[in-house]
Parts: sequence; C-alpha cells; structure tokens
Amino acid sequence: MTALEIPTDFADLLQIPVGSVTTIGSSGYPQASAVWFLYEDGVVRTSLTDTNQKVKNALANPKGTYLFLDPANPYRTLELRGDLAIEPDEDIAFLTRQLVKYGLTPEKFGRPLDGRVILTLTPTRVRTWG
Amino acid sequence: MTALEIPTDFADLLQIPVGSVTTIGSSGYPQASAVWFLYEDGVVRTSLTDTNQKVKNALANPKGTYLFLDPANPYRTLELRGDLAIEPDEDIAFLTRQLVKYGLTPEKFGRPLDGRVILTLTPTRVRTWG
Repeated sequence: MTALEIPTDFADLLQIPVGSVTTIGSSGYPQASAVWFLYEDGVVRTSLTDTNQKVKNALANPKGTYLFLDPANPYRTLELRGDLAIEPDEDIAFLTRQLVKYGLTPEKFGRPLDGRVILTLTPTRVRTWG
Repeated sequence: MTALEIPTDFADLLQIPVGSVTTIGSSGYPQASAVWFLYEDGVVRTSLTDTNQKVKNALANPKGTYLFLDPANPYRTLELRGDLAIEPDEDIAFLTRQLVKYGLTPEKFGRPLDGRVILTLTPTRVRTWG
C-alpha cells in the first residue's frame, strides 16, 4: 500500500505537538479532542490507554479524522480523514517513539504505562486550507 | 430551554477567532474544519453558504461537535457536543453580527454574501481539558 501523499507545503503541520482527533461515539455524536501524535510511515499514530473512550469508539466505528491547525496561523489547516485501527503497544515501543518527539522518556512521562494501545489513522482523504 | 453551563475558567475559549467544527458526511466519516464562529445565546453559530459541505452534512445528520484550542496553550481545550441546525440568514443579519467579532463588515468581507445560512450547534455536552 502506498501512503497517501501529503502536499509538501503542509507537511510541517504533521510535526506540530497537538492534533485534533475525532472519533464517533455509540450515540452517533462525533467526539473531538486534542492529542499528542506521531506521523510515521504515512499514518497518524497516538498512544492511548485501553480504557480511553476514543479506543472504544474506534473499535466500534473505525472512521475518524485529524485536523491539524498551524499554531502560528489558525487559518492554515490540514485534515486527514481515514480508517482507524487499535493494536496493543507491545513493550510500549510505540509510546517510547512518540515521547521522543516531546523530549520525554517513558520514565519521565508521568502517566500510566500499563494498558497502552496504539490508535492508528490511515488517511484516505487529505484536505488543506489556507 | 436553559443554555448548557460553560465552566467559567474556559469561557474565554468561546471568544477565540477559530473553532474546529466536525460534522459527519454521507460516507459516515467525520469531517473537521476550522471556522469563524460566534458564541451567543448559549449556542455556537457560524455563517456558511448553502453549498458548503458542512451544511449538507448537518441537514442529513444533525450531530456535531466543536473543539476550541487555546491558541496560547494547545493543552487547554473546550469541547461542545450537540445538535446542529441550519436556517437561512435573512438579510445576512447573523453574518453581520459575526463579522463584528473580526472587525469586519459585509462590504469588507470579500466573500459571497448570497446563499448565506447559519449553522447552529446547541450544546448538550461540555468537556474541558487542561
């Protein structure tokens, strides 16, 4: 599978600290929240615990989207829509990679390391603005 | 109807220039975009043209959410989930009010004034973070 192409002039938005991810809850309402994330291998991954509502939502309805707002210019945005998947984060290998982006290690993370899973969005649609 | 109460210490996020609104498309995928908005009367309103995809989505599936990220601190967010409605913007009265927030008038807006409708989200759930 070839990764969906991200327009070069928006690729910097995949390096910002916080993305807005939306899943859909059992009531059918979209649920949006700000998360740390890592863009790698053409997909967007974020580390969550298995009790997180986003994990439950993605398992029941694997449709999601990420919106990335330029922190310096909220009129410049990148949206990646696509399919969600949940997988266990064996030996917290992914969490460890994600934390490098934030200058952290699992030891310094200060949040639960147990029950870690990876929420992956594989983009099927790209939209840019600004 | 009483407006849903917004925690006082997050009320400032309803005055920021840009909110992230999510609707759900006919394919079932959530669609998120950054929009100008006006919070008034306990609801979130934004001016769109009637050809806008968000308008079509809201008419077909009136479930939506807004995420507001503190421009100075992306770890501080407010989410308002709720029900969407579309109504015509007679005499662009709403657009005119919204533009005041941005120091603009319809004449200086520079975008189409025809076919203006109001997308209103009436919050049923509030979530804060940070």
